[in-house]
Amino acid sequence: MIRILVDGHGGDHAPGVVIEALSTIHAQYSDKLTLGIVGQPDVLLPALQKAELADAVKIIAASEIIDMCESPAIALRRKKNSSIHVGARQVRDGEWDALVSAGNTGALMAISRMILKMLPGVDRPAIASMLPAENGKTLLLDAGANVDSSSEHLTQFAIMGSCYMEAAESIKSPRVGVLNIGSEDIKGTDVVKMAAASIAELDLNFIGNVEGTDLFLDTVDVVVCDGFVGNVALKTMEGVASFIITNLKRKLGGSLSSKLGALLSRNALRRLRKRIDPAEYNGAPLLGLNGIVVKSHGSADALAFTRAIEVAHRQVESKLKSRIVESMNKWLEG
Amino acid sequence: MIRILVDGHGGDHAPGVVIEALSTIHAQYSDKLTLGIVGQPDVLLPALQKAELADAVKIIAASEIIDMCESPAIALRRKKNSSIHVGARQVRDGEWDALVSAGNTGALMAISRMILKMLPGVDRPAIASMLPAENGKTLLLDAGANVDSSSEHLTQFAIMGSCYMEAAESIKSPRVGVLNIGSEDIKGTDVVKMAAASIAELDLNFIGNVEGTDLFLDTVDVVVCDGFVGNVALKTMEGVASFIITNLKRKLGGSLSSKLGALLSRNALRRLRKRIDPAEYNGAPLLGLNGIVVKSHGSADALAFTRAIEVAHRQVESKLKSRIVESMNKWLEG
Repeated sequence: MIRILVDGHGGDHAPGVVIEALSTIHAQYSDKLTLGIVGQPDVLLPALQKAELADAVKIIAASEIIDMCESPAIALRRKKNSSIHVGARQVRDGEWDALVSAGNTGALMAISRMILKMLPGVDRPAIASMLPAENGKTLLLDAGANVDSSSEHLTQFAIMGSCYMEAAESIKSPRVGVLNIGSEDIKGTDVVKMAAASIAELDLNFIGNVEGTDLFLDTVDVVVCDGFVGNVALKTMEGVASFIITNLKRKLGGSLSSKLGALLSRNALRRLRKRIDPAEYNGAPLLGLNGIVVKSHGSADALAFTRAIEVAHRQVESKLKSRIVESMNKWLEG
Repeated sequence: MIRILVDGHGGDHAPGVVIEALSTIHAQYSDKLTLGIVGQPDVLLPALQKAELADAVKIIAASEIIDMCESPAIALRRKKNSSIHVGARQVRDGEWDALVSAGNTGALMAISRMILKMLPGVDRPAIASMLPAENGKTLLLDAGANVDSSSEHLTQFAIMGSCYMEAAESIKSPRVGVLNIGSEDIKGTDVVKMAAASIAELDLNFIGNVEGTDLFLDTVDVVVCDGFVGNVALKTMEGVASFIITNLKRKLGGSLSSKLGALLSRNALRRLRKRIDPAEYNGAPLLGLNGIVVKSHGSADALAFTRAIEVAHRQVESKLKSRIVESMNKWLEG
């Protein structure tokens, strides 16, 4: 049995959506997963009882809660009994295989890093975000854990991203690209050029520079970039998608014929929205930590949180951690 | 009369679309604009004659053509008689008020900069791209002219972008933001933080940090960033928009009811596509040069190229150059 612990107090709608998600996951995976929730028992127990999950989900007590907008540095030092601190220690001590949290990203990152430490050879963790793409998905990393990454960091992201797509998403020999402003070698910053040169030396399926447009095409599986650039790309994507959907709905509401049209094409629109729904892609692994930690979007609903738990499950099941260690060793020795 | 010179050999479909665009512009603006085309007379004259524009459009002879994928550095030094070189010299010498080209971006940038020089106080030119947004448009700069901009460069971009939206787009007191990965002051790289601090000191309507999602909302008018980040954001936007439209069309073709729906909602879809059509936003000014130069997308069609000519027209008409000089002076003295 794989043991997954979720943060009972992370996100905008905790613990409600977290418990709803646990309910779905329990119904679907009770033969494969042992589930736990970390947080304040006096809040969590009644909620679990109400959902008839008191027997199925183990409570791990943690007395403090980190707010969504609290300073990560302060939360890290002052709230040693927060649900994130306790959850990360449980993973470190081997009590649980993974922690899933929709809480404060910076705090989750800082606390996990302090408690779990990094895998050998990895300098910094990266947030890996899955994006919808033609014929599949694309993994973008780093999506915001770091600003000012060096070429060595980007090289490590390439190794981890490739391992992830191969292990957790069963993509054979994933195509790895460096996010740049043109496909030619001479393009971009020195860091990006050095990273491309160094990744080309690795035993990866490296396809060179890719551009923002490639993120949604079937040209690349893993896209490596600095966290500043990755975060801007991710939020730009969210912004455009929401702009288009809003305008489409508004314009479809314009005339009687287009209203009727909208009614008839409603299923098609629904399928499209599902295809690009951030909820479907929820659950960003914090790669590089010596322990599995998955960040759910703070505003995730129950469906989205379920996806984040599945992401954690696949990482444990596919032994991602040891695969990354193996690949890092090969690189360090090579 | 405002005098606009277009590059007869820039872009994937030159001179065809360029001449088609001149034809539209001539029909619409013959009382306001004097039009010229720079390039090889033996190619351009027959084309102008065929379009019945031989009397309306003046040919400026230039013997060489820069290829779309030629190295900018080599084109700069070795093709002194290229249409871009000749066009930029004509603008420098006051023969024409603006140059519009769909040619090689790097070459256009490098040659314009060498020949026209920068406006006093501006260190580097920026490519300013217009994006569709809720209730209007957003100007993003730099969209790819520079990588590794300093905080001083970003400050100059803020001044120029604000002048542009005020002059050429008649936006009163444009809201200026710095593209970052969070709205809090502590977010981002040192360069971005220093830029925000320095822009806050200016006599601009500065609203602080903005994120990728803000680009398409009615929260900001001018978004300042490094050219690497801006280019990634721009191409990500193009990628998402095209992914959504392609999927929507495919899904709408799926069932009979949704086919009928698509038929009925066709006008709404057409209006949406127009709203996000890159052609509608074509024409990126190279701000900061001592002369008006507008870059059209290389794959622009005639409509899109028309828009780029209009962008040049508005810049000249609104005396953008002297407004930028004035604002830069205020900053340098302040």
